Amino acid sequence: MSNPFFKNYGPFLVSDILKLINVKTDNVKKDVELKDIKDLYSSNNSDITFFHSKKYLEIAKNTKASFCITTEFLKKELPTSCVPLVVENVLVSVSKITSMFYPDAINDDFDESVIDINETDFKDKVIYGKNVLIGKNVSIGKNCKIGHNTIIEKNVSIGDNSSIGSNTIIRNSLISNNVKILDNCVVGKHGFGFFPNKIKNLRYPHIGVVIIKENCEIGCGSTIDRGSMSNTVIGKNTYLDNQIHIAHNVKIGENSIIAGQVGIAGSSIIGSNVRIGGQAGISGHINVGNNVEIGGGSGVIKNIPDNTKVMGYPAKNIREFLRDNK
Amino acid sequence: MSNPFFKNYGPFLVSDILKLINVKTDNVKKDVELKDIKDLYSSNNSDITFFHSKKYLEIAKNTKASFCITTEFLKKELPTSCVPLVVENVLVSVSKITSMFYPDAINDDFDESVIDINETDFKDKVIYGKNVLIGKNVSIGKNCKIGHNTIIEKNVSIGDNSSIGSNTIIRNSLISNNVKILDNCVVGKHGFGFFPNKIKNLRYPHIGVVIIKENCEIGCGSTIDRGSMSNTVIGKNTYLDNQIHIAHNVKIGENSIIAGQVGIAGSSIIGSNVRIGGQAGISGHINVGNNVEIGGGSGVIKNIPDNTKVMGYPAKNIREFLRDNK
Amino acid sequence: MSNPFFKNYGPFLVSDILKLINVKTDNVKKDVELKDIKDLYSSNNSDITFFHSKKYLEIAKNTKASFCITTEFLKKELPTSCVPLVVENVLVSVSKITSMFYPDAINDDFDESVIDINETDFKDKVIYGKNVLIGKNVSIGKNCKIGHNTIIEKNVSIGDNSSIGSNTIIRNSLISNNVKILDNCVVGKHGFGFFPNKIKNLRYPHIGVVIIKENCEIGCGSTIDRGSMSNTVIGKNTYLDNQIHIAHNVKIGENSIIAGQVGIAGSSIIGSNVRIGGQAGISGHINVGNNVEIGGGSGVIKNIPDNTKVMGYPAKNIREFLRDNK
Repeated sequence: MSNPFFKNYGPFLVSDILKLINVKTDNVKKDVELKDIKDLYSSNNSDITFFHSKKYLEIAKNTKASFCITTEFLKKELPTSCVPLVVENVLVSVSKITSMFYPDAINDDFDESVIDINETDFKDKVIYGKNVLIGKNVSIGKNCKIGHNTIIEKNVSIGDNSSIGSNTIIRNSLISNNVKILDNCVVGKHGFGFFPNKIKNLRYPHIGVVIIKENCEIGCGSTIDRGSMSNTVIGKNTYLDNQIHIAHNVKIGENSIIAGQVGIAGSSIIGSNVRIGGQAGISGHINVGNNVEIGGGSGVIKNIPDNTKVMGYPAKNIREFLRDNK
Repeated sequence: MSNPFFKNYGPFLVSDILKLINVKTDNVKKDVELKDIKDLYSSNNSDITFFHSKKYLEIAKNTKASFCITTEFLKKELPTSCVPLVVENVLVSVSKITSMFYPDAINDDFDESVIDINETDFKDKVIYGKNVLIGKNVSIGKNCKIGHNTIIEKNVSIGDNSSIGSNTIIRNSLISNNVKILDNCVVGKHGFGFFPNKIKNLRYPHIGVVIIKENCEIGCGSTIDRGSMSNTVIGKNTYLDNQIHIAHNVKIGENSIIAGQVGIAGSSIIGSNVRIGGQAGISGHINVGNNVEIGGGSGVIKNIPDNTKVMGYPAKNIREFLRDNK
Repeated sequence: MSNPFFKNYGPFLVSDILKLINVKTDNVKKDVELKDIKDLYSSNNSDITFFHSKKYLEIAKNTKASFCITTEFLKKELPTSCVPLVVENVLVSVSKITSMFYPDAINDDFDESVIDINETDFKDKVIYGKNVLIGKNVSIGKNCKIGHNTIIEKNVSIGDNSSIGSNTIIRNSLISNNVKILDNCVVGKHGFGFFPNKIKNLRYPHIGVVIIKENCEIGCGSTIDRGSMSNTVIGKNTYLDNQIHIAHNVKIGENSIIAGQVGIAGSSIIGSNVRIGGQAGISGHINVGNNVEIGGGSGVIKNIPDNTKVMGYPAKNIREFLRDNK
């Protein structure tokens, strides 16, 4: 799938990409055009990809990309059809190339292009409050409501029968039918992703979106960041309470229930039918299975298999937790 | 006390209620009208009540209600004056009946009925900012201030000398004298209460309100949900710091001090002269006594008696906590 | 440095100050005028200061102030050039005197003096959204952006190339160049500081400001309170994620990275190159050194030396934490 929202400024010549990331190599036989930068799995032979961790070894071996940003150590794992471009810091180079293809994905200043909803066609289709602003590339379905002072910035699609509260800000998001997003939320801003640098940190582009599926509810004061290279996804009929923070690339399954002040760090994957108690925190890059219960206040720092109840910091089996804390 | 804000659409015939909850019974001798649905304690002989847990056994034995939604197991505890209506899931049936009596209590979409404060009589009585909106059934006392972009939605009473910040949203709340509610708060929205259902969760109505008594202060970015069958109450001269979440039905006593990012889950009762350190969390349905100190970061999962200092997760006596963590 | 924002209503006669704090003493030989109230270190011979804890013994011995609010127990430590004024509760008296010098620092109601940015000179210099309000004594540098519904209340200076999001409120703050403050933040409100009192808590004035240095980023929904007697400071190139709470007087060094939902309580000092994981909490009056890593969910209740990695609640050396939790 091509990126739904961010304009791809490519194709770019390989020679231009090499200049950008300061790589000199004899491996590039022909100065072809590259159409996009994608992950190892999604890319095809007109794309450039990246490979920075042994975790992705199996996918790397089968990538269809023609070029791959990688390290001296990992380059031997790539198929012969893929030219390795060896750099010191893979992710910094990926960030630079992504910014070249998608320069609009790095700037998250307020959306200047919005106009008053009264000046749009939505004025006859949507029930809306005072001072509602609508950006470019916005679609809104039937029977929707949008509360006072809410800003639907650019690149937002809202399905039928959805209700957005007041003082809420949404951008770069695909919101399905029958979704409720309550007051004072911020949905679709870039995540907390950047390369630390002593003078000035280097932001990396977030070309992903936020996807909120049917029948979800998002409580007041919550923040849901959009993905960097992938998307942030809230599955069908999942309910979030107030003051929850969902970081970039997080995926949550269906029918899950997440209580107040929970935080889920970047790229974690939560299953379906999961219940998370208030103030629990889940570290980044964690897998939580289906039918899991996580007690309030828990700190989850390792994967949790299906059908498990955990509690504690660090979270462990709830029986063990209760026994240890008698 | 009748409900101060939500219109009661009753009375309804018992036969209509039986149809709604799909109960067939020979116990109902006469198709009388029922005026309201109330808890076991408050209801009288023109009301229907509900009894779903042995915790309420003593109150159930003395209820004055004529009808009671209950289970096969509990029905024998009711007085002979009260006709048991046996269902599979008491709370789901209660939800349906409450929605019948109070249909307005289930919808928490933004308040479309608000108008600019300049179009109301408050324009000469209140000191207010730009873009302030006022709903129906709002009263505001003397010497009050309301900040910019703040929305006083329907069903709000504010006493004298109170000050509301900017970007704050209030509905269904009774706010007393000398109260300060700072910026970006949401007060009086429904709680995180619903019946999970694989296709689409079933929201239950919240017919309670938020009551904030004299001299309280509520910090920036806090959320206080209104009660479901009872009210959410903040006692006199209690101060809440920023980013606090108070769930539905919580009651907090007087002169209590609650530091930043604390969360109190549904239906917990906190005493007077209580101090709660930052980021502490209190589970639902917990009793915290008077003169209690709860250390920052604690997770309270059981009742705490008066005059106790606790800390830890789970919270325990502070001496024990410090000894165990030397 | 004189206070940048709050008007000093002094000088006041010593006799008036004695009356205010209800002190009778024969030590005051001449009814001189006092120009300001300052801490032990900053005050000179036209100032009054205060000394309430043995922690400040060495500084007290060398204070240049002419008068000092203190206790019977501590008064003997002051130099002969400094007249001790003995009271029951030093901080309550300090609060009263500070309120006399700086009455504007105690009231944090919404800023009524703001006007629409279209009516200011900034309309030609700043890129701004709809419904932006600007208070008195505000300066904004070149190439700045201010989002929709944002309120820059009185006493704010913003440097060049800075970007403020939407629905954000700022007052009493010095914001440097290249700073980003995202949506729904509140920066510069008074801290959670007051003297508990059974009838009505006594707020103490916050005469400090918030200082945010070059290249910082502040995430959505964060709150940063201004200082009471000192300032709240965020050092250069420090990044804060969403929903963070920074209390009054906190100082954070340079190049630090603070993940979502972290809370730092009043007067704590955090070094440079510090990384704090999501939902961690730091108690008040704590020192965290340079190059420290604090794991997500940690609760820091004692000082942490430089170059240390900690985790847990209470936070301890991360090796110890991992060993104890195998």
